[in-house]
Amino acid sequence: MRRVYKKADLPVAEIRRFLEPGPIVLVSSRWKNHTNIMTMGWHTVMEFSPSLIGCMITAANHSYEMIRKSGECVINIPTVHLVEEIVGIGNTTGAHLDKFRKFGLTEEEGNIVKAPLIKECYANYECRVADTQLLKGYNFFILEVVSARAAVYPKYPKTVHYRGEGIFMVSGKHINLRKKFKNQNL
Amino acid sequence: MRRVYKKADLPVAEIRRFLEPGPIVLVSSRWKNHTNIMTMGWHTVMEFSPSLIGCMITAANHSYEMIRKSGECVINIPTVHLVEEIVGIGNTTGAHLDKFRKFGLTEEEGNIVKAPLIKECYANYECRVADTQLLKGYNFFILEVVSARAAVYPKYPKTVHYRGEGIFMVSGKHINLRKKFKNQNL
Repeated sequence: MRRVYKKADLPVAEIRRFLEPGPIVLVSSRWKNHTNIMTMGWHTVMEFSPSLIGCMITAANHSYEMIRKSGECVINIPTVHLVEEIVGIGNTTGAHLDKFRKFGLTEEEGNIVKAPLIKECYANYECRVADTQLLKGYNFFILEVVSARAAVYPKYPKTVHYRGEGIFMVSGKHINLRKKFKNQNL
Repeated sequence: MRRVYKKADLPVAEIRRFLEPGPIVLVSSRWKNHTNIMTMGWHTVMEFSPSLIGCMITAANHSYEMIRKSGECVINIPTVHLVEEIVGIGNTTGAHLDKFRKFGLTEEEGNIVKAPLIKECYANYECRVADTQLLKGYNFFILEVVSARAAVYPKYPKTVHYRGEGIFMVSGKHINLRKKFKNQNL
């Protein structure tokens, strides 16, 4: 069951709102005329400004060279409605497969990068590769988010979070403890 | 409302089960006779074996030097029952405060590291600092998990996941899609 999200620009310094909780994401890329999508669970916010994300992409993955050579990718945040696609994308290689077509997903044009955004996802973060020093030892990319958009409704997405062994946790309810924070620690 | 967890050793190659979903964690450390605890949301699994975790700890944080100098820390995974303590620990500095005493938490001895484990947490990952090359540019520690234990019940913890602005998402239900995975992709 798909959802259609109406989206608005999100300031890049605020992308943690949907990424820090730790959802599985779909990473889309373009190299020459070929596009690809991979499923990724190992990522973290690294800085507000510049807006940095660190992530692990195994070199054996078809997307690795596409992202390294193009210097770009898009981190798309899917919701539970796409969980079958998340698994399908993670269990196929894009070497000889058009994953957008195979999984019925729609390419959307970004504001800055040439890699395609996935229209059906709740949020899309356009990224440029910012630092490759950990690629050799750890396959770890440091990306800078250069443009972002997110759905305006619902306020928070129902994301899926991977535990390994085929088990996904689905995001639950929210607690607001803002009153207990000092402003600088929010 | 606290819970008392009965724990068992967890193979270090399996620590992703509770960390990859992206919960807020409590990082405990010891330097000389001083212990401290900090709240951390920016972390990722980086490798199964050796068992690596990458995490961002601001240098302004009192724990930063304690972890850097001792070369050790413990990543403790708290559940929603400790959400008030998570916020309290994140909004105080350990420079002149004993956080274990202040927040009524219990130090537990590790198998390998000298940093104390937090008994009230669902899981405890004993870590050694494995690589400091990203400290200077990004305050990013690469840690190796050298020993781990986790609660035997419940199977999955009710963790909290931070969105910023004082808002926490609480982990929800689980979906098992193991049958749709190829074994090497689990």
